[in-house]
Amino acid sequence: MSVRYLPVLSWSRTYTRQQFADDLLASLIVMVMLVPQSLAYAMLAGLPPEMGLYASMLPLIAYTFLGSSRALSVGPVAVISLMTAAAISGLGLTDPAQLISAAMVLALMSGLMLVLMGILRLGFLANFLSHPVIAGFITASGILIAVSQLPAILGISASGRNLPEQLLSLHSAIITAWPGFNSPTLVIGFTALVYLFWARSCLSPLLRRAGVPKRAAVIAGRLSPIVAVIASAGAAWYFRLGDHGLALVGEVPAGLPALGVPVFTSIPWASLTGPALLIAVLAFVESVSVAQGLAAKKRQRIDPDQELIGLGAANLAAGFSGGFPVAGGFARSVVNFDAGAATPAAGLFAAILIAGATFVLMPLLAWLPTATLAAIIIVAVWSLLDIAIVSKAWRYSRADFLAVTTTIGLTLLAGVETGIAAGILVSILVHLYKSSRPHVAIVGEIAGSEHFRNVARHQVITHAHILSLRIDESLYFANTRYFEDLIYKEVSERTELQHVILMCSAVNEIDLSALESLEAINRRLNELGIKLHLSEIKGPVMDALQRSDLIRDLSGQVYLSQHLAVQDLL
Amino acid sequence: MSVRYLPVLSWSRTYTRQQFADDLLASLIVMVMLVPQSLAYAMLAGLPPEMGLYASMLPLIAYTFLGSSRALSVGPVAVISLMTAAAISGLGLTDPAQLISAAMVLALMSGLMLVLMGILRLGFLANFLSHPVIAGFITASGILIAVSQLPAILGISASGRNLPEQLLSLHSAIITAWPGFNSPTLVIGFTALVYLFWARSCLSPLLRRAGVPKRAAVIAGRLSPIVAVIASAGAAWYFRLGDHGLALVGEVPAGLPALGVPVFTSIPWASLTGPALLIAVLAFVESVSVAQGLAAKKRQRIDPDQELIGLGAANLAAGFSGGFPVAGGFARSVVNFDAGAATPAAGLFAAILIAGATFVLMPLLAWLPTATLAAIIIVAVWSLLDIAIVSKAWRYSRADFLAVTTTIGLTLLAGVETGIAAGILVSILVHLYKSSRPHVAIVGEIAGSEHFRNVARHQVITHAHILSLRIDESLYFANTRYFEDLIYKEVSERTELQHVILMCSAVNEIDLSALESLEAINRRLNELGIKLHLSEIKGPVMDALQRSDLIRDLSGQVYLSQHLAVQDLL
Repeated sequence: MSVRYLPVLSWSRTYTRQQFADDLLASLIVMVMLVPQSLAYAMLAGLPPEMGLYASMLPLIAYTFLGSSRALSVGPVAVISLMTAAAISGLGLTDPAQLISAAMVLALMSGLMLVLMGILRLGFLANFLSHPVIAGFITASGILIAVSQLPAILGISASGRNLPEQLLSLHSAIITAWPGFNSPTLVIGFTALVYLFWARSCLSPLLRRAGVPKRAAVIAGRLSPIVAVIASAGAAWYFRLGDHGLALVGEVPAGLPALGVPVFTSIPWASLTGPALLIAVLAFVESVSVAQGLAAKKRQRIDPDQELIGLGAANLAAGFSGGFPVAGGFARSVVNFDAGAATPAAGLFAAILIAGATFVLMPLLAWLPTATLAAIIIVAVWSLLDIAIVSKAWRYSRADFLAVTTTIGLTLLAGVETGIAAGILVSILVHLYKSSRPHVAIVGEIAGSEHFRNVARHQVITHAHILSLRIDESLYFANTRYFEDLIYKEVSERTELQHVILMCSAVNEIDLSALESLEAINRRLNELGIKLHLSEIKGPVMDALQRSDLIRDLSGQVYLSQHLAVQDLL
Repeated sequence: MSVRYLPVLSWSRTYTRQQFADDLLASLIVMVMLVPQSLAYAMLAGLPPEMGLYASMLPLIAYTFLGSSRALSVGPVAVISLMTAAAISGLGLTDPAQLISAAMVLALMSGLMLVLMGILRLGFLANFLSHPVIAGFITASGILIAVSQLPAILGISASGRNLPEQLLSLHSAIITAWPGFNSPTLVIGFTALVYLFWARSCLSPLLRRAGVPKRAAVIAGRLSPIVAVIASAGAAWYFRLGDHGLALVGEVPAGLPALGVPVFTSIPWASLTGPALLIAVLAFVESVSVAQGLAAKKRQRIDPDQELIGLGAANLAAGFSGGFPVAGGFARSVVNFDAGAATPAAGLFAAILIAGATFVLMPLLAWLPTATLAAIIIVAVWSLLDIAIVSKAWRYSRADFLAVTTTIGLTLLAGVETGIAAGILVSILVHLYKSSRPHVAIVGEIAGSEHFRNVARHQVITHAHILSLRIDESLYFANTRYFEDLIYKEVSERTELQHVILMCSAVNEIDLSALESLEAINRRLNELGIKLHLSEIKGPVMDALQRSDLIRDLSGQVYLSQHLAVQDLL
């Protein structure tokens, strides 16, 4: 095994005391942040809270050894938890034990797919998720998540697989309960919500004004959820609020998860293939974006294919140890980075600390109100909402606008899987559509120069017997027909024409379809007594054309530049 | 209704006697060619022979009024007939009346899709079928078709949905029959086959040597199938070969088709959606290629969106008048063109002539051996085989080779629908893969010039504090991550770096994902004290960037040329 396949070897052999101290501090802070999040996201996924903790132990250790990012904090994250909820609730299972198995199987399948993608070096597949589609999807998911947590804060029950269903269900639940809401729930829920929003936006400026260093102030602001957890659990215990109708997390089995393969046989695991793939791709895209951003800050790099293997191992670990699908979380990773994590060992330490903490925390968790967890989730996803992407896309390009609105609309109306799949499809189709109608300019020479410019934009010299065309796109199957048609149109309008020169400075590729089109154009123009010439062909394109018969059969010539071509044909 | 939507108006108002004479002659020749073909292709589709004749009447008339090509001869064609057979035999129907209804419904659905694509101007969708995929698909279909006709020539019965099944079935049928083949079938079948192959390759040279003008000789060669039909039917009648085990077409209802909507209710028409779409796309692609090629010879043009409507109307007409899916046939259209067809009216006349001929021909058809039709099919598809595309693709590009072999392999092994769908998918994925890893060159200035070239290929001047990158691809979502990673890699290897200049001469588009990547790169490089500059941005790309904040926030500047940029930063 080399460093290439086991990144742990790249840093473990030179591990210093100082790095150990840095990692330990970062891991302590991450642990305090991760515990409430992991409980909350387990609830969001519709799973028992201990599964969130399990998903924050072994997966972190697996990533430590196989991941390539030094700052990425792996564990349960909001959007993947929502996708997990959608996937397992779509199976029609009613037995809670089966739902747990399904979540574990989903993690295993996603992990397997990630590892396979890494081994086959298929990381590029994630590129098909464009920025606007991701931003739109996360925004829509954030809205779905926030709305799904409102019932827990109001102390009512409502649900739905999409936004209209959620809102209708919420509406009728409020009508039914009105005005008899459970007061302890309302008080705890809204207090937690207001406190967390306040802490998020005002705590760190306040601390800074009180003289706390910037970095410490920012980190302290991020740790407010644990304060909410301790305070609300304390209140629930002291006032025995469970007896007054406040929903609590309740008894949680203490200690470490049991290791083992989840029960496959009783669940329709084949139906999880699609969701597992989407989760794998999204987990990868999210994690690699975060990891790449943080690495760049230190002039470091991450290896996307190794990230696939690291994340895959983390998900496999989650599946084998009672967890559910995990990914690198944005907020946690930034905190990990800011807290000074020097190596992936910080993740290992965080896992050990969480394992230790579960023994201490379990009695406390029994008293934790679910309303607090709901408030933590709502505040966490608030920062994911990026409504501005819609107006930015509208301003910048209609194609991106179509992709982002399709993604948001379908995620809200038809669910996460349909939304993300439609977003990917639309962005690919729009890209193909655009490149299938390339910009082609008729160009002429600017007097006194060797420059050729668009006749429509500039005052240029043209000749009735020469047609100069600059193609602003690679020539490939999707645009050959359009291109052929365009040439025949231009030719049919010019009776004196003797020469057509294609200026290929922006043609980065000519595939076999385009080659055959060029051959047909060459043949047909020749039949009409018109010669076809090429100019400014790039090296790699010319290399390919040399392997064909086009250059030999060309009725005209190949010129180094458009200027030389026109000079020669005058 | 304007000429735009009713192309018939563009030529009917100035229709001359001479055009009428030309069209009439061409239509006579097409009629003689079309009758045997339409019978044979109906048999290939697994339908009664009269359906082939029906598909050659009303569809031609519909196309006359709505099509934009002056030479395209619409009617049953080999590949579409094979696809029809695959589609309707896959429904699990046993009642022949239901198969007939299914074929009509298939034509209706394809027609409807074509018309819709025309109205929505979705003709570009057909561009996703690359040349190599089409060539591979037609070659593989031709092999499937030829093999499927061997049993009829050998007088045995065998079938199969793919090549291995066909060959196995053929093999066991031969073993079973051996050596007791039906002599009249063998004699008629092989005589027809040998005669047709001979006529195809030797008849027109022979006629030319005998002094017949070239065009007439070529057309006479194309008409040999009707000679085979008349001779073999005559022989079967004279020797009463039907009584000796020769399979005959048999009684065919004389006259015109009944008009009406086919029976939808008893067939699972929804399952025909996929096949109908593939047939629509393939019919369009084939027809438009033929029409475009012939129009270019006369410096005319066809309108692809109008072609969709013309072909759609033809298929709707086929569905309402007892036919099956139709398209523009290559061989027939060339004959029509060579015979001097002046306007689409030639199609109208051919339809009327065929309608008249059915009354005359019906008694003859009862005696027509199916072995003759099988021989006609085999000889017709022989010219479709283009095995050379495989070696051409191998030589030219591995990507095209992958697309063409996938298409051929899956068409032969898994059937026509899987084959064509996989071909489309593979070519799109390969294209996206290639453009997701764009060629990016580090460039330097060639001494004594203003030219920048790849440092790996040329002796150039570079500077330790300036990195010049030329991107040979549009920047869009599929390659932004690769591109970002590449920049960070180059930056991480250069400690003295102060300026990065991106040379954008081959960047034809920057989408929102790429814009956000550039913004992130700009921000991160700035944090490292490195300035980002852009040079040689094209007009349309700059127009788009002006609508964003990138230019304003750019740490460096935008230069007209790479030379000016380096001059300024030295």
